Amino acid sequence: MAIDKQRQSTTAIARNADPAPAANPVPVSIDDMQPVAGGGILHRRVFLRRGLALATALAGGSAAAAGQADVNDASGLPAIPPWMRTPGQPFTPYGHPSPHEKPVARRIGANRLVPGNGVSWTPLEDLGGMLTPSGLHFERHHNGVPQIDPEQHRLLIHGLVAQPLTFAIDDLVRYPMQSRLLFLECGGNSNAGWHQEPIQRPLGSFHGLVSCSEWTGVPLAILLEQADVDPKASWIIAEGADAIAMNISIPLAKVVDDCFVAIYQNGEKLRPENGYPLRLIVPGWEGVLNVKWLRRLQVTDRPVMARNETGKYTELLPSGKARQFTFVIDAKSLITSPSHGQLLPAPDVYEIRGLAWSGRGRIKKVDVSADSGKTWAEADLQEPVLSRCFTRFRSAWKWDGHPAILKSRAADDTGYVQPERNALVAERGRHGYFHYNAIVAWEVDEDGVVSHVYA
Amino acid sequence: MAIDKQRQSTTAIARNADPAPAANPVPVSIDDMQPVAGGGILHRRVFLRRGLALATALAGGSAAAAGQADVNDASGLPAIPPWMRTPGQPFTPYGHPSPHEKPVARRIGANRLVPGNGVSWTPLEDLGGMLTPSGLHFERHHNGVPQIDPEQHRLLIHGLVAQPLTFAIDDLVRYPMQSRLLFLECGGNSNAGWHQEPIQRPLGSFHGLVSCSEWTGVPLAILLEQADVDPKASWIIAEGADAIAMNISIPLAKVVDDCFVAIYQNGEKLRPENGYPLRLIVPGWEGVLNVKWLRRLQVTDRPVMARNETGKYTELLPSGKARQFTFVIDAKSLITSPSHGQLLPAPDVYEIRGLAWSGRGRIKKVDVSADSGKTWAEADLQEPVLSRCFTRFRSAWKWDGHPAILKSRAADDTGYVQPERNALVAERGRHGYFHYNAIVAWEVDEDGVVSHVYA
Repeated sequence: MAIDKQRQSTTAIARNADPAPAANPVPVSIDDMQPVAGGGILHRRVFLRRGLALATALAGGSAAAAGQADVNDASGLPAIPPWMRTPGQPFTPYGHPSPHEKPVARRIGANRLVPGNGVSWTPLEDLGGMLTPSGLHFERHHNGVPQIDPEQHRLLIHGLVAQPLTFAIDDLVRYPMQSRLLFLECGGNSNAGWHQEPIQRPLGSFHGLVSCSEWTGVPLAILLEQADVDPKASWIIAEGADAIAMNISIPLAKVVDDCFVAIYQNGEKLRPENGYPLRLIVPGWEGVLNVKWLRRLQVTDRPVMARNETGKYTELLPSGKARQFTFVIDAKSLITSPSHGQLLPAPDVYEIRGLAWSGRGRIKKVDVSADSGKTWAEADLQEPVLSRCFTRFRSAWKWDGHPAILKSRAADDTGYVQPERNALVAERGRHGYFHYNAIVAWEVDEDGVVSHVYA
Repeated sequence: MAIDKQRQSTTAIARNADPAPAANPVPVSIDDMQPVAGGGILHRRVFLRRGLALATALAGGSAAAAGQADVNDASGLPAIPPWMRTPGQPFTPYGHPSPHEKPVARRIGANRLVPGNGVSWTPLEDLGGMLTPSGLHFERHHNGVPQIDPEQHRLLIHGLVAQPLTFAIDDLVRYPMQSRLLFLECGGNSNAGWHQEPIQRPLGSFHGLVSCSEWTGVPLAILLEQADVDPKASWIIAEGADAIAMNISIPLAKVVDDCFVAIYQNGEKLRPENGYPLRLIVPGWEGVLNVKWLRRLQVTDRPVMARNETGKYTELLPSGKARQFTFVIDAKSLITSPSHGQLLPAPDVYEIRGLAWSGRGRIKKVDVSADSGKTWAEADLQEPVLSRCFTRFRSAWKWDGHPAILKSRAADDTGYVQPERNALVAERGRHGYFHYNAIVAWEVDEDGVVSHVYA
């Protein structure tokens, strides 16, 4: 769909490139059109000075004279479309996207040998703003989505506590709550970046194991205090109520610091594929720790050494040692438009758009480059810029029709800067699979076709 | 559903009120339990000191000994539920709420005489956080929801401009965008507040013509500059592509200041019932101005005097004059829990939760009262507190089992304070219908039943 849409966009824009000119072009000031970095990166105020003129101009207010098929008379009013000639659809108890948006969907990569094992990817290239609609939030399941009856579900807190406790959902909703806008990223997101050759796929089908939601629930500090944790405790083992009883270890200090049990996502109760009725939220740390269908928190003095912290989520480094418990998501950014598979119809001014996030705090700045990183310019960040949340960035770019390589580079408020790919590979070696956060490069060729490159 | 859930909650909590005590009660400090206002409003840190103990305690870690039917052996582990005994549901391209949440739906109030005329209400009492899921965003339609083909849809800008323009969707998505988290409220929301007797309905079915989303789109200042607006112009008439071609007048200065044409809502393309493919967004101003299915912006030097600014949305004041063009939504707040129809199972500590918003800027503070406004205490505001956006507030309250009247009172950063009902009625008279923003009072009786009162 993304590609189809762009091709349709091509048509629309080609129309505007016709001899029939757009609105009287008022010259943009020299200052505004002066690049702020190589390859044509401009100050974004260029858009306020008619740097882009894609509208169809109507001659002297008379649309008929302009020969526009979509305008019906000399008044310049648009023709009455069929949907204005009949009453529309009735009210609905719960709404859904337009049928025209059906192609905007999660791309499913399921394991045929294990029922319900696999992933589905958020189509990041089709989205605007910072939120991910719950229906398009990425999924990573090991054995499918359990259909849980919330009346029967319980959360158990036990282990190194003075008082083991169980909580029903109706009890938990009485506890004090907090809300946070947070990204959630699978530690295995973008792992094709480790391949020898750059993968050619739409952005979301390569980097789309990351999404952003408002989560609301009960701080674990409160529930753990009630259970009265033993001073010897240092870890918590979280377990989900899916058929494999997925479990994982989390340092107790993190859990007490800012983790919570989410009951609501984007205002309503969690979706089944996102943990209904309870999900552990571990802000800024890799997705696997954010256990869905949470049923058990065992307080211990050591990690459980589960599959997902031994056989998986460990990586052999060039030194011969292995990384393990690599919890935090480092700063990362992606240009969502232009991106792979999209097509720039003609040399013109474009808005570069993207998303940035960091598991360590707030995005401090995002730089963009149109000359493969030789020069950079700072992109505009959409407020509010929140800790451990998606930040949308935007920049202006005048494409001159020559091949160009676009990059974005995020920095967070700890001073960490997203690395170039060769630096990441040098540090982590050729056995990487998890935590790929290198700068992504898109090449725009002379035909305006966008592809993925290592550059 | 809200009521049913609360009644279920009663059962769960009654269980905890059994002789079998909850976790060893560690005394809350005198300071924390000292009310900060009359009627038992407490500092919210009381929750961190075990002010609430709804969990089921398991004796010495042995659940079997505790006689819990939901725990299956002496290890204290919960019994294996049926959904852990079989692989779960497969991946889905687009997700939906759990079947158990089906009762959480918009309540539809449709006019039987006019197809597609009416409203649907957001069930605010069932939601958490600040966002409204798009599927539950309130609706106000005059003639149903048009099923628009985005390929055929055009936006026309004409009238007092040097260059009339039309825009296709594929053109508009190329323009620079902005995103804002904004509430949207119908000017007629809460109008039952003008009734002589307090209406007895769930919160959302009385106050639910207000919702909050992230909207992303193109600033109108850019499109209007391209059309080159005549200096004589002072108004814009916006028209939608529904079957009644709903239209309304907006001062040009507001449009240029901060209005935009939204293409995305909560990350994805607008929902059909929220204006797909284009909606005019007028931050902080009444919903009717935020024209859905936007097809035309006519630049003029006077308002059009449409039905919705003459026959409707005007009000006779006690002075004999009428209010007209009452655009801005004044500060308002609602306690969403406890609220009408809910039931407090027993005297205990409760979290008071609610939403506050102002069309003039940021919420500066929300006060809550448990003694009908004799004394007030400041509630905690959930960050981020954003201009013209929902702000979730929370407070702690110890209900002693005696009748109590709960109120919330919002103040915004202009200094405006939400009025008591009698002050609003004195100012606006008995012919009010629109812009009802008085303080709402909930009475909790000695049985814990919550009802709506004028107090």
